[in-house]
Amino acid sequence: MIIILKAQSEQTIIDAVAARIRELGLTPHISQGEYRTIIGAIGEEQPHLVEYLEEIPGVERVIPIMKPYKLASRDFHPDDSVYSIGDTMIGEGYVTVMAGPCAIENEEMLMEVGKAVKSAGASVLRGGAFKPRTSPYSFQGLGIEGLRIVRQVSHALKIPVITEVMDPREVDMVVEFADIIQIGARNMQNYNLLQEVGRARKPVFLKRGLAAPIKEWLMSAEYILSAGNERVILCERGIRTFSDETRFTLEIAAIPIIKEVSHLPVFVDPSHAAGRRDLVPALTMAAIAAGADGVMIEVHNCPDKARCDGPQAMFPETFAELTGSIRRLAEIMGKKMSPVG
Amino acid sequence: MIIILKAQSEQTIIDAVAARIRELGLTPHISQGEYRTIIGAIGEEQPHLVEYLEEIPGVERVIPIMKPYKLASRDFHPDDSVYSIGDTMIGEGYVTVMAGPCAIENEEMLMEVGKAVKSAGASVLRGGAFKPRTSPYSFQGLGIEGLRIVRQVSHALKIPVITEVMDPREVDMVVEFADIIQIGARNMQNYNLLQEVGRARKPVFLKRGLAAPIKEWLMSAEYILSAGNERVILCERGIRTFSDETRFTLEIAAIPIIKEVSHLPVFVDPSHAAGRRDLVPALTMAAIAAGADGVMIEVHNCPDKARCDGPQAMFPETFAELTGSIRRLAEIMGKKMSPVG
Amino acid sequence: MIIILKAQSEQTIIDAVAARIRELGLTPHISQGEYRTIIGAIGEEQPHLVEYLEEIPGVERVIPIMKPYKLASRDFHPDDSVYSIGDTMIGEGYVTVMAGPCAIENEEMLMEVGKAVKSAGASVLRGGAFKPRTSPYSFQGLGIEGLRIVRQVSHALKIPVITEVMDPREVDMVVEFADIIQIGARNMQNYNLLQEVGRARKPVFLKRGLAAPIKEWLMSAEYILSAGNERVILCERGIRTFSDETRFTLEIAAIPIIKEVSHLPVFVDPSHAAGRRDLVPALTMAAIAAGADGVMIEVHNCPDKARCDGPQAMFPETFAELTGSIRRLAEIMGKKMSPVG
Amino acid sequence: MIIILKAQSEQTIIDAVAARIRELGLTPHISQGEYRTIIGAIGEEQPHLVEYLEEIPGVERVIPIMKPYKLASRDFHPDDSVYSIGDTMIGEGYVTVMAGPCAIENEEMLMEVGKAVKSAGASVLRGGAFKPRTSPYSFQGLGIEGLRIVRQVSHALKIPVITEVMDPREVDMVVEFADIIQIGARNMQNYNLLQEVGRARKPVFLKRGLAAPIKEWLMSAEYILSAGNERVILCERGIRTFSDETRFTLEIAAIPIIKEVSHLPVFVDPSHAAGRRDLVPALTMAAIAAGADGVMIEVHNCPDKARCDGPQAMFPETFAELTGSIRRLAEIMGKKMSPVG
Repeated sequence: MIIILKAQSEQTIIDAVAARIRELGLTPHISQGEYRTIIGAIGEEQPHLVEYLEEIPGVERVIPIMKPYKLASRDFHPDDSVYSIGDTMIGEGYVTVMAGPCAIENEEMLMEVGKAVKSAGASVLRGGAFKPRTSPYSFQGLGIEGLRIVRQVSHALKIPVITEVMDPREVDMVVEFADIIQIGARNMQNYNLLQEVGRARKPVFLKRGLAAPIKEWLMSAEYILSAGNERVILCERGIRTFSDETRFTLEIAAIPIIKEVSHLPVFVDPSHAAGRRDLVPALTMAAIAAGADGVMIEVHNCPDKARCDGPQAMFPETFAELTGSIRRLAEIMGKKMSPVG
Repeated sequence: MIIILKAQSEQTIIDAVAARIRELGLTPHISQGEYRTIIGAIGEEQPHLVEYLEEIPGVERVIPIMKPYKLASRDFHPDDSVYSIGDTMIGEGYVTVMAGPCAIENEEMLMEVGKAVKSAGASVLRGGAFKPRTSPYSFQGLGIEGLRIVRQVSHALKIPVITEVMDPREVDMVVEFADIIQIGARNMQNYNLLQEVGRARKPVFLKRGLAAPIKEWLMSAEYILSAGNERVILCERGIRTFSDETRFTLEIAAIPIIKEVSHLPVFVDPSHAAGRRDLVPALTMAAIAAGADGVMIEVHNCPDKARCDGPQAMFPETFAELTGSIRRLAEIMGKKMSPVG
Repeated sequence: MIIILKAQSEQTIIDAVAARIRELGLTPHISQGEYRTIIGAIGEEQPHLVEYLEEIPGVERVIPIMKPYKLASRDFHPDDSVYSIGDTMIGEGYVTVMAGPCAIENEEMLMEVGKAVKSAGASVLRGGAFKPRTSPYSFQGLGIEGLRIVRQVSHALKIPVITEVMDPREVDMVVEFADIIQIGARNMQNYNLLQEVGRARKPVFLKRGLAAPIKEWLMSAEYILSAGNERVILCERGIRTFSDETRFTLEIAAIPIIKEVSHLPVFVDPSHAAGRRDLVPALTMAAIAAGADGVMIEVHNCPDKARCDGPQAMFPETFAELTGSIRRLAEIMGKKMSPVG
Repeated sequence: MIIILKAQSEQTIIDAVAARIRELGLTPHISQGEYRTIIGAIGEEQPHLVEYLEEIPGVERVIPIMKPYKLASRDFHPDDSVYSIGDTMIGEGYVTVMAGPCAIENEEMLMEVGKAVKSAGASVLRGGAFKPRTSPYSFQGLGIEGLRIVRQVSHALKIPVITEVMDPREVDMVVEFADIIQIGARNMQNYNLLQEVGRARKPVFLKRGLAAPIKEWLMSAEYILSAGNERVILCERGIRTFSDETRFTLEIAAIPIIKEVSHLPVFVDPSHAAGRRDLVPALTMAAIAAGADGVMIEVHNCPDKARCDGPQAMFPETFAELTGSIRRLAEIMGKKMSPVG
């Protein structure tokens, strides 16, 4: 860490700061400039020390040098992570498409959509049984009944499924039915839930919070990793900004930034970012071209009856066209589409 | 609701939309303009209908007219809500100061800070036993031991206490020890937690999420109110913006906006908004002058040892000066300071 | 326009509003609901009428239906615009790469970079003579001397050049030397400058303002178009958000949104958005995949001596690799690279 | 400055960086840690050096220590600035109210509003002759005719006037008619305009840009100050955020932040921030309570005919009530209302 002292600090202050740094198990290196004195605190940098150091009288600012996350960082794990879930491959070298309806409404619908997206090239089926809704008066999902449906369809179609968990009390149940567990954007900093899924033996798909800087997103991944679950997949789904033509602003730069600092696979959810189906193909192509390991797309066979998020779900036919384009793009990026079971 | 059709819609489309509106139990009023046809859907406006209507082919946009929340709205409850918690008064006519350390570290510390803030005029003591922390490696609070301490200090000093709950599994326990239950900003859309505290018999202090438009914040209050808990207190604590001199941007306009549309009391937390103690007095005064019903301020008797959020905690002496200023301001606003037990 | 009246409006209010609407040359259509009365104002919708209507007592909200821009809209000009500037093609069917140093430092440097980028496939050379700088103490560009250099290099290399104009007094001079005139992000709402370039006979490259919703960006294009200049090129270069790993947040969705509502070509400037050269290739590929008509990239042959914005300029070798990738991507998008003169 | 090298830098890199630092006239102080080497560059810190240092191979990050502005900083000018303009006082110890219509429409209207606001306690009259408008089709102000009107009214009522200048070609003309020159938010980084008003002999009222961090706002003040004009007044008028109940988000914390780092007076414009007149009183009181030196408020005697920004203008009667409240608040803040001529 670097400690910047206030202008014109007296020697007694400098000595006191240096003494405190030694107490904390670090070694101070003092650089006295014309206007400012700067002290480097050399040793193992622990994030919480920043707070202690900032409180020393005479200290103006403390600048951490190391990243606050470890297990999520590429320093710790230099190679890209790759996970296999049944026949589906996620990570380095693959482009993986997850698709399906926002919420599960009934078995026939999910079966029909599942067949369509699998035959178009999707290798993971999505479908929500527990739905976080802004309004207490909106449809909240089928719950356990939805989990049973998703499991049956997964079994019948031989495709792994991803579904969301919202409550630490329901993690065990969801783990039993799902192949990948999703943590929604609004729960990205629901730390008790993160710890609970950190103890699960299924991969976790962690959506970025609407107001989360990339560092905080990786810190949330660190919660899961440090609880023992090594398989985390990150998903950019748009952040909250002033821009008002879409529901959220998809931060496309998040993909190469994550690739640089972390070994974790990173996906994009263009459907929730845009909130309008007409933009989904362009955002999907942009995501893959920027280096994303995959996308999660909402597809519904009859969107005008969808019980939630209808206007952003693609129709199966246009989705099949889009997977054709993804395939061509993956090829020129030197990647393969994930095998479909 | 108002339904705007796409340009040059044919009569068959107009008829189909009108038919669908009737199916949904509403009455269509058609206005045909030179470029566009607009249909008013008259009847009880239910928020989820927007989604259905948007999905009808030929519809460009659906504009809801009614507010999506009911119990939280001033239409439903025209007078300002006032709650009494022991001797402490919260709401119309009062300015209420909640103060105390961020996290509870031990009984002596809390007792000392508690005495100081009570004698300065605070009528609620704050202190966290469960702490949401960005890093899994930071101090997470004393847990149940912290709850016991806060209860003892509350009893000894005769001051009601507020503490945070983060997990639906812990609501019953926290309710037993606390007088007011706090929902943190990162849990504002943790809907299962909201429903759980909605069943509790203690007032809920609901902080605004970092990325929450005011409407979504009120929808979260609606979750609690609709589950049966009538005593919700809102707290503005800063939103995430590009501005980089403070941790968050305190949206001062939120106060008069809430006052206009809702009957619920609204507080401000200047400490977490700023993240720096030097700005707390100015933000506190601004909050009261804008019409806030109270403030929640971090005070610590020895901030340089604080185990979390040290740099933003005020010292007891400057806090006492600030409550003096609050008192003078409350007076010219025609309000009283809440009685202290 | 749609006029929503306040709840429980009396008949006299409704009549007064209807009368006012007729005075303004529009026809009122009244829909009386249980809670609200809604009035459609049918006729030619002029943006400034919104303000008048909002001021009528009893009116709660006025919702415009038409877009506030005309000449920039696809309704006015359904086909994509294509411009030819020498051999260079900009618009539908082409991918056009503009490249060069941020600021012109001297003729040799510009000649060397110009040769490198042209041979790599760039068909427009960029270079700034007037530089907007945050600090009054930073290098502000070579001015008229820079314009002479850019003209000479353009002539010698047979490549059109783009350069920025910042002052309405300098438009005539810049027009004389440049093939395309650039308006920087911070001048997007410098209306007098927009009107001045609107009178020029050279295409205008209009960067999006850091805080500009897409509608306001198109309104700025409308200023130029309505002053008589039909050749406007839009350029997304990142908006100001809370995200802190890049200088600005590139809004990739802006590209398909513009394509839907406007006929104007849209480019992306990944260099200024990111502020770091390592992210430029990924953002460039994302831009093309999302449907952008081209990119503007900073290239410098010796970035460590660059007098401004050094850390974001690419080296000629990596730029050449990138144009190779752009070419392959353009092909699968069914587009051609613009011819190079 | 502090230069952080990449992890595991070899000694040759360290030596090269140190050599380069010496070439730039600074002295390097090297601190070698376990993971990183950090070099302090001691000497006069010039902002543009950051760019040079970042370009040295092996350098990861450069952290400036000094503020990038000088003349605007409290280090340079420790006491608060106070300006007198006729009888009107602006700065330390005073609360100054500027009020008037958004745009000047005709002499009678301005005279009437001017009398009303002066008698209510405003000591500066505002009124725009040149209006920046988002749409090229909106009313753009009366221009020179408006300037003549504002001068006549100022003379008749004996009240100084403030009006906006948008074009460097019009600065001389505006200076002749106005007592204070306003730079609008959208021109905060119109550097040529800043330099032109920097040469003027009238105080400049510099509104904050919608996307401007506080540092950039102060850098724009520095442009004016460094061109020789010592009388700059800053004005917070709201920034662009996701929050959607007001036109902009008034950043109330900007006031104490400016007070800490700068000697310049700081005002608030609640009318443009909110875009709705109902919020103006609460925002005004908050501004004064936070320490603002004054406010600028839109007042119109017949808002429903206002040719621009009508819905945010207050009526003279409610404005007079508000100035009564301001007066009481100023008193408990230990300040006086500025004398009215």
